[in-house]
Amino acid sequence: MIDDSIRPQLGVIGGLGPLASADFYVKLTRMTEALHDNEHVPAVILSVPQLPDRTEAILAGHDGPLAPLQAAVATLNALGVACIAMPCNTAHHWYDKLAENSQAEIIHIGDAVVAEIRRSLDRGRVANLATRGTLVSGFYQRRISAAGFDLCLPAIAEFQERVDSAIALVKAGSIVDAAIETERALHLAQLAGADAALLGCTELSVVAASLSDTNGLVVIDSNAALARACLMRLGFGVQEARGLPTVSRLPGQDRLPWQRAS
Amino acid sequence: MIDDSIRPQLGVIGGLGPLASADFYVKLTRMTEALHDNEHVPAVILSVPQLPDRTEAILAGHDGPLAPLQAAVATLNALGVACIAMPCNTAHHWYDKLAENSQAEIIHIGDAVVAEIRRSLDRGRVANLATRGTLVSGFYQRRISAAGFDLCLPAIAEFQERVDSAIALVKAGSIVDAAIETERALHLAQLAGADAALLGCTELSVVAASLSDTNGLVVIDSNAALARACLMRLGFGVQEARGLPTVSRLPGQDRLPWQRAS
Repeated sequence: MIDDSIRPQLGVIGGLGPLASADFYVKLTRMTEALHDNEHVPAVILSVPQLPDRTEAILAGHDGPLAPLQAAVATLNALGVACIAMPCNTAHHWYDKLAENSQAEIIHIGDAVVAEIRRSLDRGRVANLATRGTLVSGFYQRRISAAGFDLCLPAIAEFQERVDSAIALVKAGSIVDAAIETERALHLAQLAGADAALLGCTELSVVAASLSDTNGLVVIDSNAALARACLMRLGFGVQEARGLPTVSRLPGQDRLPWQRAS
Repeated sequence: MIDDSIRPQLGVIGGLGPLASADFYVKLTRMTEALHDNEHVPAVILSVPQLPDRTEAILAGHDGPLAPLQAAVATLNALGVACIAMPCNTAHHWYDKLAENSQAEIIHIGDAVVAEIRRSLDRGRVANLATRGTLVSGFYQRRISAAGFDLCLPAIAEFQERVDSAIALVKAGSIVDAAIETERALHLAQLAGADAALLGCTELSVVAASLSDTNGLVVIDSNAALARACLMRLGFGVQEARGLPTVSRLPGQDRLPWQRAS
C-alpha cells in the first residue's frame, strides 16, 4: 500500500475545519525540536471538510459523521500510521467507536488537554469554550472533573453565543473578528470565576495567537495540547512553539485593556 | 482503497520542508472562497520530511530523492486524487519523471509562478530567490524567459548566501531572522535592477507575510501561486487571502526603512 521510504508515523483526520487542521500542522511543526527537515514527524493529513456537521448530528441525535470518520481511520491504518490525531474536539464524540476499529492508537484530545491544563494549574475552575455538540457529548466535563478541576459554566446565554460566533467567524476566514468574540467569551468566563479557559474547539486555536492580554486568565489551546501529545507519544523532542503561545499568561504591558463585553 | 465519502481531490507531497507545507495548506485554505467547511477542497497531504536533500542531490548529480517522490506520487494516485501539488520548488527538478508515471495531473509550480508574475507585470526583470539546486536545474530560467521576462541575476556572492541562510533559518524555525535575511536578498536584487523578485523556494513563502516594505519591488510567493493554481484547476473560487499578502506592493508608511545590506 505504501513504500517504507515514505511511511507516515502520524495520521491526521483533518479538514474539520481546514484552517483548524492547518493550525495543528503549523503547531506540530513549530513545536518539534528540530533544525532540519528530516527531524520532523512523517505524517499524513487526510483533510475531509465534506464530513457532515458534527454539532448538528450530536444535537439531532444521529451518527451521520461516524461512517466517514471510520473510513478515514481505515485509510490511515492502511497507510501504516502508528497513531492518529483528530484536531476537531467535537468529532471525539465518536471516539470509542473509532478507537475500537483502529489498530493505530487514536490520541484523545481530551486527555491531551487535561495534561496541558496540569502544566499550568494544580486546581481551580476551568471554563470550556466549545461547540454545543462537544458540551452535549460531555467528554470534557468527565475528564476535567476526574482530573480534580472544577467546571466553570458561565450562566448567561451570551457566553455560548460569543463562542458559537467566534467558531463560525473562523470557518468563514474572519480571524480578527473571531479573536474579538473569543476575547469577550474569555472575559465572561473570568467574570464567572474561571481560573483557566479551554479553547475546546480547534477553530478557536486558530485565534490563540491573536488574543490580547487575558488579564491573568490561563488560556489552554486544544490544538497545541494535541500536537504536544502526538510528539511525546512518537518520541519527538518538544519545544515551546516560538511565536505561538500555547499556555498563555500574557503580560499586561503594551496591551489594550479588555473591552467591556457589550 | 478509499471510501468515496472521503476521497481527496488534491494530493500534496509535503514535508519539504514541513513548515513550507503547512504554509501551503494555510494559504490554500485562506485563498478558498468559502464560508463553511464543506466548501473547501478535500485533500491529502503526505508529509515526507525524511526525503533526501534535493539540492544536495542535484549538485552531486544523483537522483536520490526520485524513488521516494515516485512512491509518494503512487500513493496519492492510489488515494484517487485528481491532481497533485508539490510545495517544494527544488523537487520539480524531477517533474518530468514524476508526471510520466502519474495518472493525476501534477501542477508544476513554475507554471503557477509565471501566471502569478503576469498578474503584476507585463514585462521586466525578475530575480529568483531559490535554492542552488533549483537554479542548477534551470526550470525557472526557461519558463521566465519563455514568458517574455528578463532574468536578473545579482552578480555578488552575498545574494545567494543570504538566500541560503534564510532558507536554513526557516527550516530551523527562526522566522524573524529568516525574514531579515530575505529582505537583504530582496534589497540586493533591487540594487541589481530587478523589478520583481520570486520567492522561488517555499521556505521563503513562510516569511512572505513578515517582510517589511520592499520599496516598490514586486514580490511573488511561489506557495501562494501554487495554491491559486490548484484552486483554479479544481474549479474552486479564489479570493485574495485575507491577512496573507500574495503579490506584495506594501505601502511605505509606518514601516522602517530598509536596512543597508551589510
